[in-house]
Amino acid sequence: MAYDSTPAEQMSTTPAVPSNQTVDYVPATRLNEAFAAKADSLKPTLREWLDEPIDLIRFVPSKQEFFGYQALHLAAATDLPSMHWGKGDDFVLDFGTHRVGYLHFRLEAEGVNIDAPTRLKLTFGEISPDVVEDLQPCNTWISTSWIPEEVVTIDWPPQSVTIARRHSFRYLRIQVIDTSPKYRCLFKDLHVRAVSAVSPHVVVPPLKSSDAELIAIDRVAQRTLRDCMHTVFEDGPRRDRRMWLGDLRLQALSSYYTYPAFDLVKRCLYMFAALPREDGSLPATLFEFPTLRPASDYIVDYDALFGPTVYDYVVHSGDVDTGAELWSTILGSMKTALLHITRTGTFDGSATKAWKFCDWVENDPALDIAMQGLVLFCCRRVNDLANLLNKQAPYTEVVQRMSNTLCSQVHNNDFASKLSWTGAAWICLSGALAPPIAKSLLLRVLEDKSSIKPLTPYAWHHVAEALAMVGAERECLEMLKSYWGGMVRAGTDTFWECFDPDDPRASPYGDYHNNSYCHAWSCTPCYLLRGVLKDYLVAVEDGA
Amino acid sequence: MAYDSTPAEQMSTTPAVPSNQTVDYVPATRLNEAFAAKADSLKPTLREWLDEPIDLIRFVPSKQEFFGYQALHLAAATDLPSMHWGKGDDFVLDFGTHRVGYLHFRLEAEGVNIDAPTRLKLTFGEISPDVVEDLQPCNTWISTSWIPEEVVTIDWPPQSVTIARRHSFRYLRIQVIDTSPKYRCLFKDLHVRAVSAVSPHVVVPPLKSSDAELIAIDRVAQRTLRDCMHTVFEDGPRRDRRMWLGDLRLQALSSYYTYPAFDLVKRCLYMFAALPREDGSLPATLFEFPTLRPASDYIVDYDALFGPTVYDYVVHSGDVDTGAELWSTILGSMKTALLHITRTGTFDGSATKAWKFCDWVENDPALDIAMQGLVLFCCRRVNDLANLLNKQAPYTEVVQRMSNTLCSQVHNNDFASKLSWTGAAWICLSGALAPPIAKSLLLRVLEDKSSIKPLTPYAWHHVAEALAMVGAERECLEMLKSYWGGMVRAGTDTFWECFDPDDPRASPYGDYHNNSYCHAWSCTPCYLLRGVLKDYLVAVEDGA
Repeated sequence: MAYDSTPAEQMSTTPAVPSNQTVDYVPATRLNEAFAAKADSLKPTLREWLDEPIDLIRFVPSKQEFFGYQALHLAAATDLPSMHWGKGDDFVLDFGTHRVGYLHFRLEAEGVNIDAPTRLKLTFGEISPDVVEDLQPCNTWISTSWIPEEVVTIDWPPQSVTIARRHSFRYLRIQVIDTSPKYRCLFKDLHVRAVSAVSPHVVVPPLKSSDAELIAIDRVAQRTLRDCMHTVFEDGPRRDRRMWLGDLRLQALSSYYTYPAFDLVKRCLYMFAALPREDGSLPATLFEFPTLRPASDYIVDYDALFGPTVYDYVVHSGDVDTGAELWSTILGSMKTALLHITRTGTFDGSATKAWKFCDWVENDPALDIAMQGLVLFCCRRVNDLANLLNKQAPYTEVVQRMSNTLCSQVHNNDFASKLSWTGAAWICLSGALAPPIAKSLLLRVLEDKSSIKPLTPYAWHHVAEALAMVGAERECLEMLKSYWGGMVRAGTDTFWECFDPDDPRASPYGDYHNNSYCHAWSCTPCYLLRGVLKDYLVAVEDGA
Repeated sequence: MAYDSTPAEQMSTTPAVPSNQTVDYVPATRLNEAFAAKADSLKPTLREWLDEPIDLIRFVPSKQEFFGYQALHLAAATDLPSMHWGKGDDFVLDFGTHRVGYLHFRLEAEGVNIDAPTRLKLTFGEISPDVVEDLQPCNTWISTSWIPEEVVTIDWPPQSVTIARRHSFRYLRIQVIDTSPKYRCLFKDLHVRAVSAVSPHVVVPPLKSSDAELIAIDRVAQRTLRDCMHTVFEDGPRRDRRMWLGDLRLQALSSYYTYPAFDLVKRCLYMFAALPREDGSLPATLFEFPTLRPASDYIVDYDALFGPTVYDYVVHSGDVDTGAELWSTILGSMKTALLHITRTGTFDGSATKAWKFCDWVENDPALDIAMQGLVLFCCRRVNDLANLLNKQAPYTEVVQRMSNTLCSQVHNNDFASKLSWTGAAWICLSGALAPPIAKSLLLRVLEDKSSIKPLTPYAWHHVAEALAMVGAERECLEMLKSYWGGMVRAGTDTFWECFDPDDPRASPYGDYHNNSYCHAWSCTPCYLLRGVLKDYLVAVEDGA
């Protein structure tokens, strides 16, 4: 997840801010020093490795390409050290794949006099438009400081140059603003010091499938996850480098099947647990730098998903002690969600003004029903965790009440027609319905042309997971191939913050130049393919 | 001095390059290791001190001001730490006077979430247009990399920010490109770590004059000199930070009367002496960084002025040993100039293709006569040095021959009408003519509306010094007040690379945004007022 908000008076010339973005009262936070210290002790040592560019390329217009540009090979990057550049020169290096790290090069100069500085503009691109189009001005309602550009001036070359800021990119555009009429510059030893919590030497077992498309989707999902794994699970390394609770749950689930990092998940759980608000709720997102602190953002569903995230961690790691230590934090994180549960077991969004998310779709009339399914899912997971910890399940009564209500609601024929895809997904994920009933409900909603589709990969994931869970594995695979596969066909090697197959320039922020194209909440295909769908894929292979 | 040159094919859209700027054959240099080591051992420890801004200002159009902008006081800089800034904010700080150094500040942030980097554009201004007008695009034939701008992006404020590059400025313009809609930034502890070879605590004796205008001119000249004194005598701290032989002579002369720095002068003499070309000539300019090396630029008159510069140093420092050690270098530096002296004792510019400068005036028909006076001046000074060193004067014959020729030339009535101001000045400075004859010649040329005036402060200096030398002290003072005083009246506190009272936008480079406004070759009023005119000023005071 990633967004920002702004007062109305600043928005005159920029796109409208979503109505759910106004910050009212923010409850005070009681920092839990012990949990913060524990999180700090679990800080991972980042792995570093050197990557070099592969090709010197030029992008040319092409109707065949999703973003409208096709790469032409101009030279091998091994030729770069011998190439001379002067005022106005402009070229693009392709590193072949996406990575996150620090650029370094040695700027040399040749001419009769090296008599002036060299001034360069560097643009770090995740997708082709980043290095073909002007990224500024950027008509967006979030900060343009994220635009991945650097202007550097180097006195008295030859000099070694290291860009101090971390960048997330596959492409590097270098524009030579000026050298001097008396010399031209050269780029020697240009490379990136890539960083991740995951070593590049970690070998992920091959996907048990012979389907090349699924293998590609799984590979891109892995790369997306790895490049979001740093000292925390970031939402995106380009923007906003923040950890969000709902995103963390999907990243952790995906990591268990690819890059096991139990200490990193544990660290992130303790970071949130260190920042409870006075009402026991947890912030939707937090900041690690310059010091650990909560953001003002609060989301009811993200808060409630803390418990299930701990449950997943305990199940996969076997670390029940952490589950026990975080138990009271979990109970606090459920409070606000439960405030919305009515006597009849439905979810009443009007009970508080707190933001309910589930997806970026605005004004989903069925958001309350989606939240009903989500809260029920969370209550059941926390009860399951209680069993693992030999504790009394805290939510048996409310689970019973909500489940009964849901079962009767489903028998109402109008019910399905009211649902969005996301709403139907959470109802299925709640586990209250018998699989056949859940499956027919979900497929009926997905076939209904009038029902609201998901906007974000985050919501698409819950629909896909719901399909797999209710026995619609085939439809789940089709969705993976059509949605995530669509990004692969668009030529990416990391999955994006948002994807609209019909609009390459779509953005939740008004300008796609400020989108993130390596975004953690879209990394779940490796969890679905290696976890939820594992047995199904084996069966498919055997059947084949 | 400061310039650059460029191949014609690169100049299509930019101003024409002076015809004297093409580099042909550059003789090889034989590095004198011993001299280089000696220069290195004399490297000064730079003095450092902290300066803070005084006012937060805004410039508004004003026909009264030379550059067309008047400063309005908005706030005291002491208010800055409490001021909040956001996207699009743009303000100017006035440090009150010119200095050279490194900017530092602590960037803080206040808001509900510090959730994005802060991106700033900093522009360092020596004059008001630098911080009012857009400096780019800059339509110039020299490098635009000198344009004093920095774009910095600061992750995760609060952070301490130090601009690694040295800047030369009085004004600082800060443009907030963006923060984030959720926070605004503040600038705490903003200051500059000023640097110079001259301590700010050095007390220069007051000028022995009650004339406020002369005192102001002297003060500005001192500031100009100090801000050009670093690990070498730079031509200008903004651009090009190179040491030029002809400029060095004037800087050294000015320093003897204000900021005695014999070791720095000695270091600079040895740097040039370390880089003789195979024909014994010395480069017009050299580079200190990244390692000591000559520029390709060669100027006959600058080469010949090495000897007089050593002479001045020996006379003021008493260090005859250095004079003796550099003696053979001096003889080598005279060779090329003497190649141009004819049997009849005139100067024949066509004898070599080497560049003869004297001033930026192009196609001065009397350049040969100016060079004749300059070479005669140099020969006499080297002979004087020989006497100080108890050596045989090497140029008695050529001095006799050139002097006789000059004396007879002067008796020709057409002679004066052929002279430019600069030519007349060097003939007077040569000392070959009796003062009354020289004085009437010089005044006649200066009164002649058709004679070519100087373009640069470098050439204006030689005219002013010639006036003082031939007994036209009053006219010399008038010139100081009209020319250098014109810059003072324009509101500067350092003298400029070029000054045209009738054209504030004049530039030798096509675009005045790339001019230098603290330029060493214009610092000589303190030498003239405290040295050449010292006795005259005392007499004026007594007479007053």
